[in-house]
Amino acid sequence: MNVNVKFTPSMLGAENELRGATAVVIDTLRATSTIITALMAGAREVIAAATIEEAVGISHRLGTDRTLLGGERGGLKINGFHLGNSPAEYTPEVVSGKTIVLTTTNGALALVKSRQAAHVHCGALLNASAVAEALALEGPAELVFMCGGSGGNFSLEDTIAVGAILSRLAERVEGLRLTDGARVARAIYSEVRHDLPSALSISDHGQALIELGFEHDVRYCAQTDLANAPVPTLIGSSIKPRVGA
Amino acid sequence: MNVNVKFTPSMLGAENELRGATAVVIDTLRATSTIITALMAGAREVIAAATIEEAVGISHRLGTDRTLLGGERGGLKINGFHLGNSPAEYTPEVVSGKTIVLTTTNGALALVKSRQAAHVHCGALLNASAVAEALALEGPAELVFMCGGSGGNFSLEDTIAVGAILSRLAERVEGLRLTDGARVARAIYSEVRHDLPSALSISDHGQALIELGFEHDVRYCAQTDLANAPVPTLIGSSIKPRVGA
Repeated sequence: MNVNVKFTPSMLGAENELRGATAVVIDTLRATSTIITALMAGAREVIAAATIEEAVGISHRLGTDRTLLGGERGGLKINGFHLGNSPAEYTPEVVSGKTIVLTTTNGALALVKSRQAAHVHCGALLNASAVAEALALEGPAELVFMCGGSGGNFSLEDTIAVGAILSRLAERVEGLRLTDGARVARAIYSEVRHDLPSALSISDHGQALIELGFEHDVRYCAQTDLANAPVPTLIGSSIKPRVGA
Repeated sequence: MNVNVKFTPSMLGAENELRGATAVVIDTLRATSTIITALMAGAREVIAAATIEEAVGISHRLGTDRTLLGGERGGLKINGFHLGNSPAEYTPEVVSGKTIVLTTTNGALALVKSRQAAHVHCGALLNASAVAEALALEGPAELVFMCGGSGGNFSLEDTIAVGAILSRLAERVEGLRLTDGARVARAIYSEVRHDLPSALSISDHGQALIELGFEHDVRYCAQTDLANAPVPTLIGSSIKPRVGA
């Protein structure tokens, strides 16, 4: 298994670089952590939209009674939306049985650009072992981590999540061939693994979220391997928990 | 001083993200190491060209008697060019007094995209302390490392060179504000600093160069702080040693 990392969506070339590959989309703070949480809370599915307009359009098409609009711009809830991008909002009472139409600054772009891949999963610290287990079962020849990054820049928290998944994958699969980016992600994770809340708190985006009052989100997203955390998987335009052992 | 890192040219946004900033272009294996070496060997200047056609055009315009065409595609010398991209070729006997027109796969693109910055220097391990010294003197508010990367991907050797310069800069300047990418570069450098030749040898591009027979280049470029290593600086379209204490 060849393992590459795109630290920002812009690092993906225009050509169909992901064709035939399995992509794991990572946006630890907070889009993929929110998707995992929404599905754990019983949401029917999540649909990612690149723009606010697209999100509203999808919601109208599917029916406003069965959909909830979620997402952020500048970290804050979008005017007129039901939910922001804080996993804490995605409780069973609110999201059970609903389709969440989610649009976020970094994560949605990473998801949209990943659609060309043969298989697309969503990863974060919350489901690191579950993603590693799924990848070990599927055994793709080409694995690419597609990070949301932070406003076009490299992000520490996504790099840490890639490293967390890789360290678990290495326990299950022999002969991983890591590119430089994958090697660096493993090294960084190994350095900070014993205090993930601190590492996420000092990251650029962690700091921005704390300033906006979302310190509890940063702490929540720093947890690894929540019990029953699903592997959200893209099927068509719908993200649902991966089915199968 | 705010410090950001673009690990590939594609990470630079379309907007004039570098306006007013100082950019340090890094392509450790091998373009910026070659530029440093060429100027140490007495080359008059280096002119970076994005394409082979552009390089040939510049050479004709300036006069083929005073110019040498250098560069690579796929790591190898370009047909009809005088020199490849191996620093070992850039000896005083060959390059003294000449203008080198250089076109390379990754480094040239990073240089071309950096032209929008207020100041552009070339860095590598070979001149890490000299670059740090120049940056400490100039004291830019915004410093951006623009890495060549490796075929659109994150590269270990450029990350290490960024970390080497940053660790030297931190000894000279207080209150550096590092973004996530800069923090990771420092951490990785700190991990490998005691055996840079091994670190460069295991990098993706280091391995490719060794397979092509350029192991001596990888070892050469792993040296830090060559005596009298210049800080190549872009003035107009010409790269010359930075002048001044």
